[in-house]
Amino acid sequence: MRAVTIREDLHSAIEDRLRHRLDARAAAAEPYGAEFMRLWRLTGDRVLGGKLLRPRLVVELHAALAAERLEEPTCPSTTVLDLAVAVELLHYSFLLHDDVIDGDVQRRHSPNLIAALRDEHPNAERRAGEALHWGRTGAILMGDLLLADVHQRFARADVPSEQRMRILDLLDHTITETVVGEQLDVALGDHVVSADLHTILSMSEYKTATYTFEFPLRLAAIIAGRDNALETDLAAIARHLGLAFQLQDDLLSVFGEGEEHGKDPYSDLREGKQTALVAYARMTSTWVGIETRFGAADLTEQEGAGMRDALRACGAERFVQSLVDEQLSAAYALIADAEASGALPPAARRVLTALTDRLEGRRA
Amino acid sequence: MRAVTIREDLHSAIEDRLRHRLDARAAAAEPYGAEFMRLWRLTGDRVLGGKLLRPRLVVELHAALAAERLEEPTCPSTTVLDLAVAVELLHYSFLLHDDVIDGDVQRRHSPNLIAALRDEHPNAERRAGEALHWGRTGAILMGDLLLADVHQRFARADVPSEQRMRILDLLDHTITETVVGEQLDVALGDHVVSADLHTILSMSEYKTATYTFEFPLRLAAIIAGRDNALETDLAAIARHLGLAFQLQDDLLSVFGEGEEHGKDPYSDLREGKQTALVAYARMTSTWVGIETRFGAADLTEQEGAGMRDALRACGAERFVQSLVDEQLSAAYALIADAEASGALPPAARRVLTALTDRLEGRRA
Repeated sequence: MRAVTIREDLHSAIEDRLRHRLDARAAAAEPYGAEFMRLWRLTGDRVLGGKLLRPRLVVELHAALAAERLEEPTCPSTTVLDLAVAVELLHYSFLLHDDVIDGDVQRRHSPNLIAALRDEHPNAERRAGEALHWGRTGAILMGDLLLADVHQRFARADVPSEQRMRILDLLDHTITETVVGEQLDVALGDHVVSADLHTILSMSEYKTATYTFEFPLRLAAIIAGRDNALETDLAAIARHLGLAFQLQDDLLSVFGEGEEHGKDPYSDLREGKQTALVAYARMTSTWVGIETRFGAADLTEQEGAGMRDALRACGAERFVQSLVDEQLSAAYALIADAEASGALPPAARRVLTALTDRLEGRRA
Repeated sequence: MRAVTIREDLHSAIEDRLRHRLDARAAAAEPYGAEFMRLWRLTGDRVLGGKLLRPRLVVELHAALAAERLEEPTCPSTTVLDLAVAVELLHYSFLLHDDVIDGDVQRRHSPNLIAALRDEHPNAERRAGEALHWGRTGAILMGDLLLADVHQRFARADVPSEQRMRILDLLDHTITETVVGEQLDVALGDHVVSADLHTILSMSEYKTATYTFEFPLRLAAIIAGRDNALETDLAAIARHLGLAFQLQDDLLSVFGEGEEHGKDPYSDLREGKQTALVAYARMTSTWVGIETRFGAADLTEQEGAGMRDALRACGAERFVQSLVDEQLSAAYALIADAEASGALPPAARRVLTALTDRLEGRRA
């Protein structure tokens, strides 16, 4: 019972800090006119709806690592919260530019920032092209503002200067790999590189695993005053968790219940998204039956259901699920090794095991 | 003769440092695959062709201010060059996202990064839509990488921590105002706000003046160890110079020689760009003759020439030229005041006067 309460408190604490940060930006935007302030307000409404997976990892792992050395508190609590909030803002900055690149106008069942700005255009119906351009411009510019804000938080973090250099290095590494992954994703979609399984798995690792798991875990270790060796262990664990997470997303998008995971059913198939499922199916004789309508913007619900059944029948679902299981087993093994070697204290091991358990039971 | 040599040396010194920085990024990109390295190489080729107006201002004004207090060198020379280079990279980052927003594929008479990536698509002709998408994605992502890089340079600058906080504040202010200006520019084009002269002048000030003049001048003052009072003086001078510079751009685009300033003749008129020229013309009876074809994508050379003549006849050219003259006079007056009050040393006054002189005689 107590653990649940702590977890809820943690969520509120992060959310409060996030709201405080976004309100401050909106207030500072006021002298620059109504449009600029509106951009911040609409962004704030959307950022605050998230699950806060990444910032919670920062705070939870930091607390577990810091508990072992309470005699020398290395990082005051508002600093941890500020950096955790910055991790969430980096995530949202990536989502905004991703939506511009993919032409998406929806996120988590609701209109995204692009659609919200588009719909507020004074003449949204008669000037539909201009309204959409206005929305996409806002998303590009807000992505830039948030990316800048994240860097300001890291550059000003109230930590010893050696730690500040390490978190700046980590931020640089994270942004580079996420951009590499995004570029590779688009290279696959635009037929610049061929869609083999190896390329698709690299793309997933770079685009999602790095910033979703490696970034928060290593950040927590650095600001808890831990050394590079633990960072290396955490990076290896994070890569397995990240790949499992992305492969689960691919499975849920095709085989999951739309209501739970918040995506349109069959949207991946309609967009012709190159996933591990598709890469596997391509190597089977079933592919000829899928190929003709794969990526068709006007894919019907019935066709989507048929394609889903074909992906199951050819063994693609089973294959990707086995990849997920392998990644999670590898993560459990590395966590156990790190604890056995003394690198990972028991409280931190519990945080990582609980995270791996949650991924194992993931339904949405 | 000697001044010319120094100026050429300065240009080479900045260019060398810029090349060094971009080569380092391209080399670090290699492990991530051919597409990512190619993105850095194509970017490097383009960044290096610029006039380096902004970084030169940083180095020149810093040298003039530092000469007065050689007894306490506050900032080593590679630090000044690194920050100057970061100023140029911020400029290029803005240009990239600007080109995506405006749908431009050309810059300085040559294919821009979008067009270069598009043309390298393995199937650029048969898959023209995908090739352009590939190019635009590259420009969004590279804009993000450069924006991140600029922040890393500022966050790691080898200056006293009080100065580092001041240059980080300045960077934040600069990015905010540039984004406000860009948003306002698009708000004008997409009919979200009405195109009155006041709004157009605010837009020009935010979008261009802040980062082209205020940013380099204040940056030089901070790293030369000067106080806030001088920054305030420089900001006021910079606003006049920046507005003059942008109004000159608008004049040159319509009345200048295409070969010299590197823009397509009449491109502003073809795009329906809201400038001070147009805002003035709109208030005259000549406007009815211009309005019908203003912003027509298929505007002929003959129609463009007719529109240019109408903008001259109605007094718009003369009006905007008088605004430029006023801004430059105001700049000269503020420079003289700052020298008289002792805030601005003679060497620094010479740098600012020479800059104002160059704008006064500007042809391209």
